[in-house]
Amino acid sequence: MREQYRIELRRLSRDLTEIARLVHRAILDARTALESADVHLAQQVISEDARIDRLQNTLDEQAVRLLALQAPVATDLRAVVASLRMSASLERMGDLARHIAQLTRLRYPEHVLPDCVQELFARMADAAVEVAEETVMLLDSRDLVHADRVDAVNTRMNELHASVFRAIAAPSWTATPATTTDVTLASRYLERFTDHGVSVADKTRYLVTGEWTAHGGPETGRS
Amino acid sequence: MREQYRIELRRLSRDLTEIARLVHRAILDARTALESADVHLAQQVISEDARIDRLQNTLDEQAVRLLALQAPVATDLRAVVASLRMSASLERMGDLARHIAQLTRLRYPEHVLPDCVQELFARMADAAVEVAEETVMLLDSRDLVHADRVDAVNTRMNELHASVFRAIAAPSWTATPATTTDVTLASRYLERFTDHGVSVADKTRYLVTGEWTAHGGPETGRS
Repeated sequence: MREQYRIELRRLSRDLTEIARLVHRAILDARTALESADVHLAQQVISEDARIDRLQNTLDEQAVRLLALQAPVATDLRAVVASLRMSASLERMGDLARHIAQLTRLRYPEHVLPDCVQELFARMADAAVEVAEETVMLLDSRDLVHADRVDAVNTRMNELHASVFRAIAAPSWTATPATTTDVTLASRYLERFTDHGVSVADKTRYLVTGEWTAHGGPETGRS
Repeated sequence: MREQYRIELRRLSRDLTEIARLVHRAILDARTALESADVHLAQQVISEDARIDRLQNTLDEQAVRLLALQAPVATDLRAVVASLRMSASLERMGDLARHIAQLTRLRYPEHVLPDCVQELFARMADAAVEVAEETVMLLDSRDLVHADRVDAVNTRMNELHASVFRAIAAPSWTATPATTTDVTLASRYLERFTDHGVSVADKTRYLVTGEWTAHGGPETGRS
Protein backbone atom coordinates (compact mmCIF):
# COMPACT_ATOMS: atom_id res chain seq x y z
CA MET A 1 0.00 0.00 0.00
CA ARG A 2 2.76 2.42 0.98
CA GLU A 3 4.62 1.72 -2.25
CA GLN A 4 1.40 2.25 -4.22
CA TYR A 5 0.95 5.56 -2.44
CA ARG A 6 4.40 6.80 -3.48
CA ILE A 7 3.75 5.71 -7.05
CA GLU A 8 0.49 7.63 -7.12
CA LEU A 9 2.05 10.77 -5.68
CA ARG A 10 4.79 10.64 -8.29
CA ARG A 11 2.27 10.09 -11.04
CA LEU A 12 0.34 13.17 -9.95
CA SER A 13 3.49 15.22 -10.17
CA ARG A 14 4.41 13.73 -13.55
CA ASP A 15 0.94 14.36 -15.00
CA LEU A 16 1.09 17.97 -13.88
CA THR A 17 4.37 18.41 -15.75
CA GLU A 18 2.81 16.71 -18.77
CA ILE A 19 -0.06 19.25 -18.78
CA ALA A 20 2.51 22.05 -18.55
CA ARG A 21 4.27 20.57 -21.62
CA LEU A 22 1.01 20.60 -23.59
CA VAL A 23 0.44 24.22 -22.52
CA HIS A 24 3.94 25.09 -23.72
CA ARG A 25 3.21 23.48 -27.09
CA ALA A 26 -0.16 25.31 -27.26
CA ILE A 27 1.30 28.78 -26.68
CA LEU A 28 4.18 28.12 -29.11
CA ASP A 29 1.74 27.10 -31.84
CA ALA A 30 -0.75 29.86 -30.98
CA ARG A 31 1.96 32.50 -31.36
CA THR A 32 3.16 31.06 -34.68
CA ALA A 33 -0.42 30.87 -35.96
CA LEU A 34 -1.06 34.46 -34.84
CA GLU A 35 2.08 35.83 -36.44
CA SER A 36 1.68 34.00 -39.75
CA ALA A 37 -2.16 33.98 -39.92
CA ASP A 38 -1.96 30.18 -40.15
CA VAL A 39 -5.54 29.00 -39.79
CA HIS A 40 -4.63 25.29 -39.85
CA LEU A 41 -2.23 25.64 -36.97
CA ALA A 42 -4.78 27.81 -35.13
CA GLN A 43 -7.36 25.07 -35.62
CA GLN A 44 -4.91 22.54 -34.23
CA VAL A 45 -4.36 24.59 -31.07
CA ILE A 46 -8.13 24.81 -30.64
CA SER A 47 -8.62 21.05 -31.06
CA GLU A 48 -5.66 20.14 -28.87
CA ASP A 49 -7.02 22.19 -25.97
CA ALA A 50 -9.58 19.44 -25.36
CA ARG A 51 -6.64 17.16 -24.54
CA ILE A 52 -5.41 19.55 -21.86
CA ASP A 53 -8.92 19.68 -20.40
CA ARG A 54 -9.17 15.88 -20.36
CA LEU A 55 -5.77 15.49 -18.73
CA GLN A 56 -6.72 18.05 -16.11
CA ASN A 57 -9.91 16.12 -15.33
CA THR A 58 -7.96 12.89 -15.04
CA LEU A 59 -5.42 14.50 -12.74
CA ASP A 60 -8.13 15.99 -10.55
CA GLU A 61 -9.93 12.65 -10.24
CA GLN A 62 -6.64 11.01 -9.39
CA ALA A 63 -5.95 13.63 -6.71
CA VAL A 64 -9.37 13.18 -5.14
CA ARG A 65 -8.99 9.39 -5.19
CA LEU A 66 -5.62 9.75 -3.52
CA LEU A 67 -7.15 11.95 -0.82
CA ALA A 68 -9.93 9.41 -0.29
CA LEU A 69 -7.86 6.22 -0.25
CA GLN A 70 -4.58 7.35 1.24
CA ALA A 71 -5.60 10.32 3.42
CA PRO A 72 -2.20 11.99 3.05
CA VAL A 73 -1.10 14.43 5.73
CA ALA A 74 1.43 17.24 6.10
CA THR A 75 3.67 17.74 3.08
CA ASP A 76 1.94 15.15 0.94
CA LEU A 77 -1.49 16.61 1.60
CA ARG A 78 -0.17 20.03 0.67
CA ALA A 79 1.29 18.60 -2.53
CA VAL A 80 -2.01 17.02 -3.54
CA VAL A 81 -4.04 20.17 -2.83
CA ALA A 82 -1.44 22.27 -4.66
CA SER A 83 -1.71 19.90 -7.65
CA LEU A 84 -5.44 20.54 -7.82
CA ARG A 85 -4.83 24.28 -7.87
CA MET A 86 -1.94 24.19 -10.29
CA SER A 87 -3.86 22.01 -12.73
CA ALA A 88 -6.63 24.64 -12.73
CA SER A 89 -4.10 27.38 -13.55
CA LEU A 90 -2.53 25.30 -16.31
CA GLU A 91 -5.93 24.53 -17.78
CA ARG A 92 -6.65 28.27 -17.92
CA MET A 93 -3.31 28.88 -19.64
CA GLY A 94 -4.40 26.35 -22.26
CA ASP A 95 -7.71 28.20 -22.65
CA LEU A 96 -5.89 31.49 -23.19
CA ALA A 97 -3.65 29.96 -25.89
CA ARG A 98 -6.87 28.68 -27.48
CA HIS A 99 -8.45 32.16 -27.31
CA ILE A 100 -5.47 33.57 -29.23
CA ALA A 101 -5.88 30.81 -31.82
CA GLN A 102 -9.61 31.60 -32.04
CA LEU A 103 -8.83 35.26 -32.80
CA THR A 104 -6.49 34.08 -35.57
CA ARG A 105 -9.18 31.84 -37.02
CA LEU A 106 -11.84 34.57 -36.75
CA ARG A 107 -9.80 37.09 -38.76
CA TYR A 108 -8.31 34.69 -41.32
CA PRO A 109 -7.13 35.40 -44.03
CA GLU A 110 -6.40 38.80 -42.46
CA HIS A 111 -3.78 39.17 -39.75
CA VAL A 112 -5.18 39.92 -36.29
CA LEU A 113 -2.48 42.46 -35.45
CA PRO A 114 -1.72 45.66 -37.36
CA ASP A 115 1.92 46.16 -38.39
CA CYS A 116 2.56 48.86 -35.80
CA VAL A 117 2.20 46.48 -32.84
CA GLN A 118 3.72 43.34 -34.32
CA GLU A 119 7.07 43.83 -32.69
CA LEU A 120 5.48 44.60 -29.35
CA PHE A 121 3.40 41.42 -29.57
CA ALA A 122 6.44 39.39 -30.59
CA ARG A 123 8.00 40.41 -27.29
CA MET A 124 4.82 39.55 -25.41
CA ALA A 125 4.67 36.16 -27.12
CA ASP A 126 8.33 35.59 -26.23
CA ALA A 127 7.44 36.31 -22.61
CA ALA A 128 4.45 33.95 -22.66
CA VAL A 129 6.50 31.13 -24.21
CA GLU A 130 9.28 31.74 -21.71
CA VAL A 131 6.84 31.48 -18.79
CA ALA A 132 5.48 28.21 -20.23
CA GLU A 133 9.03 26.83 -20.53
CA GLU A 134 10.00 27.91 -17.04
CA THR A 135 6.79 26.38 -15.68
CA VAL A 136 7.67 23.01 -17.22
CA MET A 137 11.17 23.20 -15.76
CA LEU A 138 9.84 24.32 -12.40
CA LEU A 139 7.37 21.45 -12.14
CA ASP A 140 9.93 18.97 -13.39
CA SER A 141 12.77 20.02 -11.10
CA ARG A 142 11.06 21.93 -8.26
CA ASP A 143 14.05 24.26 -8.51
CA LEU A 144 12.76 27.66 -7.40
CA VAL A 145 15.13 29.53 -9.67
CA HIS A 146 12.45 28.87 -12.32
CA ALA A 147 9.76 30.35 -10.07
CA ASP A 148 11.80 33.55 -9.77
CA ARG A 149 12.22 33.64 -13.55
CA VAL A 150 8.46 33.31 -14.03
CA ASP A 151 7.97 36.34 -11.76
CA ALA A 152 10.58 38.37 -13.63
CA VAL A 153 9.08 37.57 -17.03
CA ASN A 154 5.61 38.40 -15.70
CA THR A 155 6.85 41.87 -14.65
CA ARG A 156 8.15 42.34 -18.19
CA MET A 157 4.79 41.20 -19.57
CA ASN A 158 2.92 43.75 -17.46
CA GLU A 159 5.09 46.53 -18.86
CA LEU A 160 4.50 45.32 -22.43
CA HIS A 161 0.75 45.07 -21.76
CA ALA A 162 0.77 48.71 -20.57
CA SER A 163 2.70 49.67 -23.73
CA VAL A 164 -0.09 48.20 -25.84
CA PHE A 165 -2.61 50.49 -24.14
CA ARG A 166 -0.30 53.47 -24.65
CA ALA A 167 0.03 52.59 -28.36
CA ILE A 168 -3.76 52.41 -28.71
CA ALA A 169 -4.25 55.78 -26.96
CA ALA A 170 -1.54 57.53 -29.04
CA PRO A 171 -2.58 59.98 -31.79
CA SER A 172 -0.74 57.82 -34.32
CA TRP A 173 -3.16 54.89 -33.78
CA THR A 174 -5.14 54.40 -36.99
CA ALA A 175 -6.49 50.85 -36.71
CA THR A 176 -10.22 50.19 -37.02
CA PRO A 177 -12.32 49.80 -33.85
CA ALA A 178 -12.65 46.03 -34.49
CA THR A 179 -8.86 45.73 -34.71
CA THR A 180 -8.51 47.81 -31.55
CA THR A 181 -10.75 45.28 -29.81
CA ASP A 182 -8.70 42.36 -31.13
CA VAL A 183 -5.44 43.95 -30.00
CA THR A 184 -6.91 44.68 -26.57
CA LEU A 185 -8.10 41.09 -26.15
CA ALA A 186 -4.90 39.50 -27.47
CA SER A 187 -2.87 41.62 -25.07
CA ARG A 188 -5.15 40.73 -22.19
CA TYR A 189 -4.92 37.00 -23.00
CA LEU A 190 -1.14 37.07 -23.03
CA GLU A 191 -0.99 39.08 -19.82
CA ARG A 192 -3.36 36.63 -18.09
CA PHE A 193 -1.32 33.70 -19.40
CA THR A 194 1.80 34.75 -17.49
CA ASP A 195 -0.32 35.72 -14.45
CA HIS A 196 -1.43 32.10 -14.19
CA GLY A 197 2.23 31.10 -14.49
CA VAL A 198 2.87 33.24 -11.41
CA SER A 199 0.11 31.35 -9.57
CA VAL A 200 1.81 28.06 -10.36
CA ALA A 201 5.16 29.51 -9.27
CA ASP A 202 3.67 30.78 -6.00
CA LYS A 203 2.14 27.42 -5.19
CA THR A 204 5.35 25.55 -5.96
CA ARG A 205 7.30 28.00 -3.82
CA TYR A 206 4.95 27.52 -0.90
CA LEU A 207 5.17 23.78 -1.34
CA VAL A 208 8.96 23.66 -1.54
CA THR A 209 9.72 26.15 1.23
CA GLY A 210 7.01 24.53 3.36
CA GLU A 211 8.82 21.21 2.91
CA TRP A 212 12.12 22.70 3.95
CA THR A 213 10.68 24.41 6.98
CA ALA A 214 8.70 21.44 8.19
CA HIS A 215 11.02 18.58 7.31
CA GLY A 216 14.47 20.07 6.82
CA GLY A 217 14.95 18.50 3.41
CA PRO A 218 13.49 17.42 0.11
CA GLU A 219 10.59 15.05 -0.04
CA THR A 220 9.89 11.99 -2.14
CA GLY A 221 6.67 13.42 -3.56
CA ARG A 222 8.73 15.06 -6.32
CA SER A 223 9.35 13.64 -9.73
CA MET B 1 -14.66 14.55 17.43
CA ARG B 2 -17.53 13.56 15.16
CA GLU B 3 -19.58 16.56 16.33
CA GLN B 4 -16.58 18.86 15.75
CA TYR B 5 -16.28 17.45 12.24
CA ARG B 6 -19.90 18.28 11.39
CA ILE B 7 -19.45 21.80 12.79
CA GLU B 8 -16.38 22.33 10.61
CA LEU B 9 -18.10 21.06 7.46
CA ARG B 10 -21.01 23.38 8.10
CA ARG B 11 -18.67 26.29 8.72
CA LEU B 12 -16.94 25.67 5.39
CA SER B 13 -20.26 25.80 3.62
CA ARG B 14 -21.32 28.94 5.52
CA ASP B 15 -18.05 30.73 4.78
CA LEU B 16 -18.42 29.96 1.08
CA THR B 17 -21.87 31.57 1.10
CA GLU B 18 -20.39 34.54 2.97
CA ILE B 19 -17.78 35.04 0.22
CA ALA B 20 -20.57 34.86 -2.38
CA ARG B 21 -22.42 37.61 -0.46
CA LEU B 22 -19.35 39.84 -0.54
CA VAL B 23 -19.01 39.18 -4.29
CA HIS B 24 -22.66 40.14 -4.75
CA ARG B 25 -22.06 43.42 -2.86
CA ALA B 26 -18.90 44.03 -4.93
CA ILE B 27 -20.61 43.66 -8.31
CA LEU B 28 -23.60 45.75 -7.18
CA ASP B 29 -21.31 48.59 -6.09
CA ALA B 30 -19.00 48.22 -9.11
CA ARG B 31 -21.97 48.60 -11.48
CA THR B 32 -23.29 51.66 -9.60
CA ALA B 33 -19.81 53.22 -9.58
CA LEU B 34 -19.40 52.50 -13.30
CA GLU B 35 -22.78 53.95 -14.24
CA SER B 36 -22.48 57.10 -12.13
CA ALA B 37 -18.68 57.60 -12.39
CA ASP B 38 -18.55 57.45 -8.59
CA VAL B 39 -14.86 57.30 -7.74
CA HIS B 40 -15.43 56.92 -3.99
CA LEU B 41 -17.63 53.89 -4.43
CA ALA B 42 -15.14 52.49 -6.97
CA GLN B 43 -12.37 52.94 -4.41
CA GLN B 44 -14.47 51.11 -1.86
CA VAL B 45 -14.96 48.12 -4.17
CA ILE B 46 -11.19 48.04 -4.73
CA SER B 47 -10.41 48.15 -0.99
CA GLU B 48 -13.09 45.64 -0.06
CA ASP B 49 -11.70 43.08 -2.51
CA ALA B 50 -8.87 42.43 -0.05
CA ARG B 51 -11.50 41.15 2.36
CA ILE B 52 -12.73 38.60 -0.18
CA ASP B 53 -9.14 37.48 -0.74
CA ARG B 54 -8.56 37.11 3.00
CA LEU B 55 -11.78 35.15 3.49
CA GLN B 56 -10.83 32.87 0.62
CA ASN B 57 -7.45 32.20 2.21
CA THR B 58 -9.08 31.43 5.54
CA LEU B 59 -11.55 29.07 3.90
CA ASP B 60 -8.80 27.29 2.00
CA GLU B 61 -6.70 26.82 5.13
CA GLN B 62 -9.77 25.53 6.93
CA ALA B 63 -10.47 23.06 4.11
CA VAL B 64 -6.90 21.76 4.13
CA ARG B 65 -6.95 21.43 7.93
CA LEU B 66 -10.20 19.51 7.66
CA LEU B 67 -8.65 17.17 5.09
CA ALA B 68 -5.63 16.65 7.34
CA LEU B 69 -7.40 16.12 10.65
CA GLN B 70 -10.65 14.46 9.62
CA ALA B 71 -9.71 12.68 6.38
CA PRO B 72 -13.27 12.91 5.03
CA VAL B 73 -14.37 10.38 2.41
CA ALA B 74 -17.11 10.04 -0.20
CA THR B 75 -19.61 12.91 -0.23
CA ASP B 76 -17.82 14.93 2.44
CA LEU B 77 -14.49 14.71 0.65
CA ARG B 78 -16.17 15.83 -2.55
CA ALA B 79 -17.76 18.75 -0.69
CA VAL B 80 -14.42 19.89 0.72
CA VAL B 81 -12.63 19.66 -2.64
CA ALA B 82 -15.54 21.45 -4.32
CA SER B 83 -15.30 24.21 -1.70
CA LEU B 84 -11.66 24.77 -2.61
CA ARG B 85 -12.60 25.11 -6.25
CA MET B 86 -15.66 27.26 -5.72
CA SER B 87 -13.76 29.63 -3.44
CA ALA B 88 -11.24 30.14 -6.26
CA SER B 89 -14.06 30.98 -8.70
CA LEU B 90 -15.67 33.39 -6.23
CA GLU B 91 -12.34 35.07 -5.58
CA ARG B 92 -11.96 35.63 -9.35
CA MET B 93 -15.46 37.09 -9.51
CA GLY B 94 -14.37 39.56 -6.81
CA ASP B 95 -11.27 40.41 -8.87
CA LEU B 96 -13.43 41.10 -11.93
CA ALA B 97 -15.73 43.43 -9.95
CA ARG B 98 -12.53 45.17 -8.78
CA HIS B 99 -11.27 45.47 -12.38
CA ILE B 100 -14.50 47.25 -13.35
CA ALA B 101 -14.05 49.59 -10.37
CA GLN B 102 -10.44 50.21 -11.44
CA LEU B 103 -11.60 51.23 -14.93
CA THR B 104 -14.04 53.65 -13.28
CA ARG B 105 -11.28 55.13 -11.13
CA LEU B 106 -8.87 55.36 -14.06
CA ARG B 107 -11.26 57.42 -16.21
CA TYR B 108 -12.73 59.59 -13.45
CA PRO B 109 -14.19 62.25 -13.79
CA GLU B 110 -15.08 60.95 -17.26
CA HIS B 111 -17.50 58.06 -17.69
CA VAL B 112 -15.90 54.82 -18.90
CA LEU B 113 -18.75 54.00 -21.30
CA PRO B 114 -19.93 56.12 -24.22
CA ASP B 115 -23.67 56.86 -24.31
CA CYS B 116 -24.32 54.52 -27.21
CA VAL B 117 -23.53 51.37 -25.16
CA GLN B 118 -24.88 52.41 -21.78
CA GLU B 119 -28.13 50.56 -22.17
CA LEU B 120 -26.34 47.45 -23.40
CA PHE B 121 -24.02 47.54 -20.40
CA ALA B 122 -26.94 48.11 -18.03
CA ARG B 123 -28.31 44.79 -19.24
CA MET B 124 -24.93 43.12 -18.85
CA ALA B 125 -24.62 44.52 -15.33
CA ASP B 126 -28.14 43.24 -14.56
CA ALA B 127 -27.03 39.81 -15.71
CA ALA B 128 -23.85 39.89 -13.60
CA VAL B 129 -25.75 40.99 -10.48
CA GLU B 130 -28.37 38.31 -11.12
CA VAL B 131 -25.70 35.62 -11.35
CA ALA B 132 -24.19 36.85 -8.09
CA GLU B 133 -27.60 36.71 -6.39
CA GLU B 134 -28.39 33.26 -7.75
CA THR B 135 -24.96 32.05 -6.62
CA VAL B 136 -25.65 33.18 -3.05
CA MET B 137 -29.04 31.44 -3.10
CA LEU B 138 -27.55 28.33 -4.67
CA LEU B 139 -24.80 28.02 -2.05
CA ASP B 140 -27.22 28.82 0.73
CA SER B 141 -29.96 26.39 -0.31
CA ARG B 142 -28.21 23.90 -2.63
CA ASP B 143 -31.41 24.11 -4.67
CA LEU B 144 -30.34 23.44 -8.26
CA VAL B 145 -33.04 25.67 -9.69
CA HIS B 146 -30.53 28.46 -8.98
CA ALA B 147 -27.81 26.61 -10.89
CA ASP B 148 -30.10 26.43 -13.93
CA ARG B 149 -30.83 30.16 -13.61
CA VAL B 150 -27.10 30.92 -13.53
CA ASP B 151 -26.70 29.00 -16.80
CA ALA B 152 -29.62 30.82 -18.41
CA VAL B 153 -28.31 34.24 -17.40
CA ASN B 154 -24.85 33.31 -18.65
CA THR B 155 -26.30 32.50 -22.08
CA ARG B 156 -27.92 35.93 -22.08
CA MET B 157 -24.60 37.48 -21.08
CA ASN B 158 -22.79 35.80 -23.97
CA GLU B 159 -25.30 37.27 -26.40
CA LEU B 160 -24.89 40.73 -24.89
CA HIS B 161 -21.10 40.38 -25.02
CA ALA B 162 -21.35 39.55 -28.74
CA SER B 163 -23.60 42.60 -29.22
CA VAL B 164 -20.86 44.79 -27.77
CA PHE B 165 -18.42 43.55 -30.40
CA ARG B 166 -21.01 44.15 -33.13
CA ALA B 167 -21.55 47.70 -31.85
CA ILE B 168 -17.81 48.36 -31.94
CA ALA B 169 -17.49 46.99 -35.49
CA ALA B 170 -20.49 48.98 -36.80
CA PRO B 171 -19.89 52.03 -39.04
CA SER B 172 -21.72 54.18 -36.48
CA TRP B 173 -19.03 53.59 -33.83
CA THR B 174 -17.25 56.90 -33.18
CA ALA B 175 -15.59 56.38 -29.80
CA THR B 176 -11.85 56.96 -29.41
CA PRO B 177 -9.49 53.97 -29.51
CA ALA B 178 -8.88 54.27 -25.75
CA THR B 179 -12.62 54.13 -25.11
CA THR B 180 -12.92 51.16 -27.47
CA THR B 181 -10.32 49.39 -25.32
CA ASP B 182 -12.21 50.24 -22.12
CA VAL B 183 -15.50 49.01 -23.56
CA THR B 184 -13.83 45.78 -24.74
CA LEU B 185 -12.30 45.12 -21.33
CA ALA B 186 -15.45 46.01 -19.36
CA SER B 187 -17.45 43.65 -21.54
CA ARG B 188 -14.89 40.91 -21.13
CA TYR B 189 -14.84 41.35 -17.33
CA LEU B 190 -18.61 41.05 -17.10
CA GLU B 191 -18.68 38.04 -19.40
CA ARG B 192 -15.97 36.31 -17.35
CA PHE B 193 -17.85 37.14 -14.15
CA THR B 194 -20.89 35.08 -15.14
CA ASP B 195 -18.62 32.35 -16.56
CA HIS B 196 -17.19 31.84 -13.10
CA GLY B 197 -20.74 31.74 -11.79
CA VAL B 198 -21.32 28.82 -14.17
CA SER B 199 -18.27 27.05 -12.71
CA VAL B 200 -19.73 27.38 -9.22
CA ALA B 201 -23.10 26.15 -10.51
CA ASP B 202 -21.46 23.15 -12.22
CA LYS B 203 -19.59 22.16 -9.09
CA THR B 204 -22.66 22.46 -6.91
CA ARG B 205 -24.65 20.43 -9.40
CA TYR B 206 -22.05 17.68 -9.42
CA LEU B 207 -21.98 17.74 -5.65
CA VAL B 208 -25.73 17.58 -5.21
CA THR B 209 -26.49 15.04 -7.94
CA GLY B 210 -23.46 13.03 -6.81
CA GLU B 211 -25.05 12.89 -3.36
CA TRP B 212 -28.36 11.77 -4.75
CA THR B 213 -26.83 9.09 -6.92
CA ALA B 214 -24.51 7.74 -4.29
CA HIS B 215 -26.65 8.06 -1.17
CA GLY B 216 -30.22 8.47 -2.27
CA GLY B 217 -30.79 11.60 -0.24
CA PRO B 218 -29.50 14.88 1.07
CA GLU B 219 -26.44 15.02 3.26
CA THR B 220 -25.61 16.86 6.46
CA GLY B 221 -22.66 18.68 4.94
CA ARG B 222 -25.05 21.37 3.74
CA SER B 223 -25.87 24.56 5.54
